[in-house]
Amino acid sequence: MADAPLVTPGPTTDAVRRHDPGVRGFASDNYAGVHPEVLAALALANGGHQVSYGADEYTGHLQELFRRHFGPAAEVFPVFNGTGANVTALQAVTERWGAVICAESAHINVDECGAPERVGGLKLLPVPTPDGKLTPELIDRQAYGFDDEHRAHPEVVSITQTTELGTCYTPAEIRAVCDHAHQLGMAVHLDGARLANAAASLDVPLAEFTTDAGVDILSFGGTKNGLLLGECVVVINPERARGLLHLRKLSMQLASKMRFVSVQFEALLAGDLWLRSARHANAMARRLEQAVRDIDGVRVTQQVRSNAVFAVLPREVSERLQKRYRFYFWDESTGEVRWMCAFDTTEADVDGFAAAVAEEMRNGG
Amino acid sequence: MADAPLVTPGPTTDAVRRHDPGVRGFASDNYAGVHPEVLAALALANGGHQVSYGADEYTGHLQELFRRHFGPAAEVFPVFNGTGANVTALQAVTERWGAVICAESAHINVDECGAPERVGGLKLLPVPTPDGKLTPELIDRQAYGFDDEHRAHPEVVSITQTTELGTCYTPAEIRAVCDHAHQLGMAVHLDGARLANAAASLDVPLAEFTTDAGVDILSFGGTKNGLLLGECVVVINPERARGLLHLRKLSMQLASKMRFVSVQFEALLAGDLWLRSARHANAMARRLEQAVRDIDGVRVTQQVRSNAVFAVLPREVSERLQKRYRFYFWDESTGEVRWMCAFDTTEADVDGFAAAVAEEMRNGG
Amino acid sequence: MADAPLVTPGPTTDAVRRHDPGVRGFASDNYAGVHPEVLAALALANGGHQVSYGADEYTGHLQELFRRHFGPAAEVFPVFNGTGANVTALQAVTERWGAVICAESAHINVDECGAPERVGGLKLLPVPTPDGKLTPELIDRQAYGFDDEHRAHPEVVSITQTTELGTCYTPAEIRAVCDHAHQLGMAVHLDGARLANAAASLDVPLAEFTTDAGVDILSFGGTKNGLLLGECVVVINPERARGLLHLRKLSMQLASKMRFVSVQFEALLAGDLWLRSARHANAMARRLEQAVRDIDGVRVTQQVRSNAVFAVLPREVSERLQKRYRFYFWDESTGEVRWMCAFDTTEADVDGFAAAVAEEMRNGG
Amino acid sequence: MADAPLVTPGPTTDAVRRHDPGVRGFASDNYAGVHPEVLAALALANGGHQVSYGADEYTGHLQELFRRHFGPAAEVFPVFNGTGANVTALQAVTERWGAVICAESAHINVDECGAPERVGGLKLLPVPTPDGKLTPELIDRQAYGFDDEHRAHPEVVSITQTTELGTCYTPAEIRAVCDHAHQLGMAVHLDGARLANAAASLDVPLAEFTTDAGVDILSFGGTKNGLLLGECVVVINPERARGLLHLRKLSMQLASKMRFVSVQFEALLAGDLWLRSARHANAMARRLEQAVRDIDGVRVTQQVRSNAVFAVLPREVSERLQKRYRFYFWDESTGEVRWMCAFDTTEADVDGFAAAVAEEMRNGG
Repeated sequence: MADAPLVTPGPTTDAVRRHDPGVRGFASDNYAGVHPEVLAALALANGGHQVSYGADEYTGHLQELFRRHFGPAAEVFPVFNGTGANVTALQAVTERWGAVICAESAHINVDECGAPERVGGLKLLPVPTPDGKLTPELIDRQAYGFDDEHRAHPEVVSITQTTELGTCYTPAEIRAVCDHAHQLGMAVHLDGARLANAAASLDVPLAEFTTDAGVDILSFGGTKNGLLLGECVVVINPERARGLLHLRKLSMQLASKMRFVSVQFEALLAGDLWLRSARHANAMARRLEQAVRDIDGVRVTQQVRSNAVFAVLPREVSERLQKRYRFYFWDESTGEVRWMCAFDTTEADVDGFAAAVAEEMRNGG
Repeated sequence: MADAPLVTPGPTTDAVRRHDPGVRGFASDNYAGVHPEVLAALALANGGHQVSYGADEYTGHLQELFRRHFGPAAEVFPVFNGTGANVTALQAVTERWGAVICAESAHINVDECGAPERVGGLKLLPVPTPDGKLTPELIDRQAYGFDDEHRAHPEVVSITQTTELGTCYTPAEIRAVCDHAHQLGMAVHLDGARLANAAASLDVPLAEFTTDAGVDILSFGGTKNGLLLGECVVVINPERARGLLHLRKLSMQLASKMRFVSVQFEALLAGDLWLRSARHANAMARRLEQAVRDIDGVRVTQQVRSNAVFAVLPREVSERLQKRYRFYFWDESTGEVRWMCAFDTTEADVDGFAAAVAEEMRNGG
Repeated sequence: MADAPLVTPGPTTDAVRRHDPGVRGFASDNYAGVHPEVLAALALANGGHQVSYGADEYTGHLQELFRRHFGPAAEVFPVFNGTGANVTALQAVTERWGAVICAESAHINVDECGAPERVGGLKLLPVPTPDGKLTPELIDRQAYGFDDEHRAHPEVVSITQTTELGTCYTPAEIRAVCDHAHQLGMAVHLDGARLANAAASLDVPLAEFTTDAGVDILSFGGTKNGLLLGECVVVINPERARGLLHLRKLSMQLASKMRFVSVQFEALLAGDLWLRSARHANAMARRLEQAVRDIDGVRVTQQVRSNAVFAVLPREVSERLQKRYRFYFWDESTGEVRWMCAFDTTEADVDGFAAAVAEEMRNGG
Repeated sequence: MADAPLVTPGPTTDAVRRHDPGVRGFASDNYAGVHPEVLAALALANGGHQVSYGADEYTGHLQELFRRHFGPAAEVFPVFNGTGANVTALQAVTERWGAVICAESAHINVDECGAPERVGGLKLLPVPTPDGKLTPELIDRQAYGFDDEHRAHPEVVSITQTTELGTCYTPAEIRAVCDHAHQLGMAVHLDGARLANAAASLDVPLAEFTTDAGVDILSFGGTKNGLLLGECVVVINPERARGLLHLRKLSMQLASKMRFVSVQFEALLAGDLWLRSARHANAMARRLEQAVRDIDGVRVTQQVRSNAVFAVLPREVSERLQKRYRFYFWDESTGEVRWMCAFDTTEADVDGFAAAVAEEMRNGG
């Protein structure tokens, strides 16, 4: 079958193209579309009948593929989106009375509309951080009261790699977090919505800062790295996690035609697409940083270790820029903005945007 | 842009075809893949950047498209899957103390792993039915205690069209349910995972047995009708429902690259693909019923009004058949089986399967 | 207002007596007040400071007391009310994805406003029964799908003793339920809001139909047996239950001044008050049954095995009777009524009520 | 064992006195017992039958009594404990997607084992404060994103009076919080576990800093002010709150023999017992502060505006003191301790304790 022709898209569709595929911005890696190789994989997996709900050939193969990256004990559970991956994973490593220590800036704390609390029944114990990264010392600010029934029980530390601020833990930093959490009897969850960007940034294999560093369970992101849709819960330490099949289903994250989620991850991980795309996005962010950091009045606020550039510049300048390129304010109170690059950001995009920044700065703030 | 070329799948992918696209069975309409026109629509919507989380052009257009089918007040909220659609919709029409009257055989009661209870905090009040259909009289078996704080408050009646048993409400039957529910102060939710099959079976527009019959909110199914993935919550009566945006998000059903969910529904609903596919699947089920109903020892147990055939035959015969074609036992205790047809079931598939049934029956049970 | 209270009020209070302590009815054992010996115990435990939240001397002693009744492994956790006891206990023996098999008439299913679903996130799997009692055969109607993630996982069977219909399991019947549940990997919870009435009815020690029969966890009722307020979760099999301290707290069932809950149970269980009161209430119900069962037109519908009499009589007769004595309709559709006796029901109360029934029957229905 | 109890025990009880009623400490106002006038009220309400679940005469009268204190629109719902009052109240003023802005030190955030999250499904948005008090400026740190479905929707500000740190809002400060919250479309909940202490401290009627200041709903504490057990949810603004009856029941806070909760509040509020007891406890705390504040090495850390004294002194001194008097460390990291007074704290208790502090300080730290 290997050389059988792809199932090609139909000659026609009643849907109409409603956007200009030549327009790109710096708002989010979620604004980008689907990598052509991923779209090809969807067509490849199409046709005929495959068992639904994960008993298909593609999902079966995924187990092997993830073990190649995360070690022989890894178990993978594809889900729909990042919130779904995080909340499913966190439930799997906590009791009903469990609490989650996380950075105040964590996606689970600020961007999931209370899903961890509402769907998971979990209490979050947030810690302010300068750069989105937890340390043993910062964890200790919430890691107490293990025997106190008046306090939700701290059972898991959740970290994000790369962080919501575009920074990146070293493998040693993650190991320190894991060792500390484990000593206190807690598990470690890693929100890896941009895990590929971290591997690209660190230039090490995925296992080096996950499995080998002691992470127990993680959310592996696909959507921000060129998939149409799809994330995976990866259980690295099966002794720490339980009930994944039921939890995924009751958390409403079980895809019926799962082959189409799984084959996208195969397209990503079987070769080096995951790394190529992440490296490219990271490189574009670095290019952008280099292009703007010497512009007078622009201050880059976080180390650029993935595909994000955080910067402060005059609000009026940003507002004029937003009329030319899409991007978001990160902190309304300080005027900090976030510029994201994606797998499809081009050098010309970056250069054009940097030129626009320079131009609008010259026009005054 | 209308005649611009499709963004074609890449020339290559590291994924490998792992299944035989020529093999089909009768296990589930979820076993089928993606309709080629839908795959074409995915490619069409690809390329460039589009605002994420539903503010894209495709999702914007979807509002208009659904209003064409469900009336000018309709509001549509694409989600990932059927459980997600049902639980999001039910939360939108209930208070925290609300309960849901449904058929005992309802998907929300038997196939969602308790998600309505766990995620929605909802108590289900199930009623046994002979054919999966509620009536005012059956509703009354649970519609009481509206002023009794000891009882979860009955606030919504949930019906399924077509039902889990392949039967189909007439528009008048749905109207009777809605009138009764409304008189008692309750809203009506319709689980329309196979709503297209119902329209095809009744040969009437979608609105005739939803909007015009008094339904307040519904789950509109796409996955079982040839989409890669996607369902929609459709609010028909906005005075009855609230909080959909937040509820979809906290129920972990908000797709970031929503354009790719929405464009599939455009492919389905802009022309007649939804109806063509549903009519075909229904016709295949009728063909199958006609082919097997005169086989001695085979008893069809429910009216065939959609794409499902329910039948009782000797267990040994079924087990031999399962080695040749995939399908499920519906009721282990009675040996009842369910045979599902899909948009891609062929006449040859049906004829071959019916011949196999006849042959295995001759071989003895 | 009748005779002086047994417990002398303090020198003064600004509260005013607002009821006639000489009036009693047959509505509920919850309508009765506090047994004088229990009120005496409250005064006894008063004065000075005691550690709050259960680390007091009275709660400490309760452990020993319950072990005397339920065996050396028993652990007791006082809570506020029956719903609190049931939902706390059920959470302790289930995972997040667990389901509870129970009789359709179970208090957890019909009288707790969905608290098991809302607070516990539990799906109930109800089974219709003729007399409120489950059997292995009835359990099997819901005990399936243990490996099916689409179904909430059946993890516990919950029975009620005495049942909501006033019937009583024999020790052998409970053993059969427990053996069957355990064989299927499920735990057994017993809702013992009227456990004392069962012991009185069976004339055996409490352990004989709980611990010795295989029950894993139970709710032990105090309120209906003469306490001001108070129930206990009793863990009989600690290997099956976990997290009770945290679960009680997060279920909002942790009393700060717990000594006053615990000392009531000491008053009840240190001697024979629990049994005296239950025997008396049961005897009053039997006396009532004997007095009414030969009245033409009155039909007692359930075996009288505790302190409840269920009967059908003409609705008009019941409505006239309700103007003279408080009691409830049990089933509005059939006109079935429930007459409850309490620790303080007198023979004169029963005889007077039976005479009223006879008189109103003579006046026609 | 000290002098005879004010309420004479009944003729007999099998319970045994297990504590020395002459021993008191400074650990918590929850360590104290029941005020004799309250115990008298329990006896008064005993005897005969009263309708259960709140339809009794005592609970009926409570409505009038609370309106006297909180204005003619007030509605009162007795519950078991403070966590129950808070979580029931917060649910009544929020949608399923609601969030609660509160001080980081709030009881709901640190002492309720995640019940707001688990039972209420609520996300808390905590704000660090120096003294446990919110201000409009502090509220603004979390009051944003009202239109952003990615953020749990800020719907209510919860303040505590007196605060967990023993400080007290002025009526003007509460009005400023309420005005600000209302302008932003949010309701205001007040956790009044020690509301009587606030009235005593401010020397104003209860309404002046609740109803008149704009509070919408509050938890009114009884347990810490001499009740056996009991708190009330008080709806001040019925337009803001809904579903209280069902919410109380499903939150497992509905007492069956409610007359005994309600009559305690009558004993408290019909005359001035609530104020006498609170004034006394506050006075004892001030006496303690005055006695220790000039001891070298002892630093009182918060204004003493209720019945609590917070102080820092050498840890070794505190540990020696704890062998003589019960009290708690408030902050293990700084060695801060909390000393609580209750309605039954005597001047001799305070003087003896202050002398012990002085003595142990002299013995070195």
